[in-house]
Amino acid sequence: MSEWFETTDGLWAALWDALRDGVADARHPARRPTFATVSPDGWPEARTVVLRTADAQAAALTVHTDLQSDKIKSLQANPRGALHVWVPEKDLQIRLQGHVAIASGDAIRPLWAEIPDHAQQSYGVIPAPGTPIPEALDYVKAPDPATFAVLNCAVTQVDLVHLGKDHRRAQFSRVRHWQGQWLSP
Amino acid sequence: MSEWFETTDGLWAALWDALRDGVADARHPARRPTFATVSPDGWPEARTVVLRTADAQAAALTVHTDLQSDKIKSLQANPRGALHVWVPEKDLQIRLQGHVAIASGDAIRPLWAEIPDHAQQSYGVIPAPGTPIPEALDYVKAPDPATFAVLNCAVTQVDLVHLGKDHRRAQFSRVRHWQGQWLSP
Repeated sequence: MSEWFETTDGLWAALWDALRDGVADARHPARRPTFATVSPDGWPEARTVVLRTADAQAAALTVHTDLQSDKIKSLQANPRGALHVWVPEKDLQIRLQGHVAIASGDAIRPLWAEIPDHAQQSYGVIPAPGTPIPEALDYVKAPDPATFAVLNCAVTQVDLVHLGKDHRRAQFSRVRHWQGQWLSP
Repeated sequence: MSEWFETTDGLWAALWDALRDGVADARHPARRPTFATVSPDGWPEARTVVLRTADAQAAALTVHTDLQSDKIKSLQANPRGALHVWVPEKDLQIRLQGHVAIASGDAIRPLWAEIPDHAQQSYGVIPAPGTPIPEALDYVKAPDPATFAVLNCAVTQVDLVHLGKDHRRAQFSRVRHWQGQWLSP
């Protein structure tokens, strides 16, 4: 009987377990991955996002955001994202890359209706996020389904590193049908 | 008396306190930021790094890496990096961007000599990091000062978000001499 991190199948399963735990449990580290994009002028950017869904079958993830946020401008210019999570209890580093499609408007109105009132507060602020303001609190929250957006990330590549007594690193890609490949760590 | 997060000066001080704590304390969240770069083919990338120094006066950070790692190829093509840390005890999100210079060879030999033996193990592996290998452990560690590199990051921009009862967001940039500017969150 091998440990989960000794096979690429075990690592792959641990990846989706962690992402599902993140969706289900607000305190799990995979709940708040770091999401990296490239700005329109070519700078790397990184910020915390909240993971909303993780579909192992489709290898797809979703994140919610404000349609006026900087990451939308970046994704419109370069629709590629990277997600990073460190899972301490598994000594596992998760790195994903994927194509990101932005959904908003009528298509996601049913989703908006399901979001609790207090959470709707996270979408819509006046002035728009990132606008300079004279004082820290010179803004108002203005929950608005028109500024709510869903980022649909179709994962194309995954890189997992298990930091154990020995380090193990494996890569998985959609074009190789997620068949794992060991890499030198 | 205001809280530290109620002034841009207070946020700026909290930033460098956190980074210094990260350098000094292996268990502090700022010890292991997420470092984002842009790959030569334009993909965002993110991975954990270990923060080695943080100089508030110069607004400069350093990270050590293996000269054969992917992030070196990325930084050679696009010498810009972004660093992201979430500091739970302060409800503070730190986002930095900066120009990254790669130092290696004789210039940093004195630094290599100061690294404990067990830590030198992190620099130098055969085959090079990211090389496909048949089995998970088909590699050998080969500590080698020739593959040791220091990333010197000259910060150009900082974005801080404090998630409190009210959210506060401030931006700081080198060109504005780090004078804080409130932003809509």
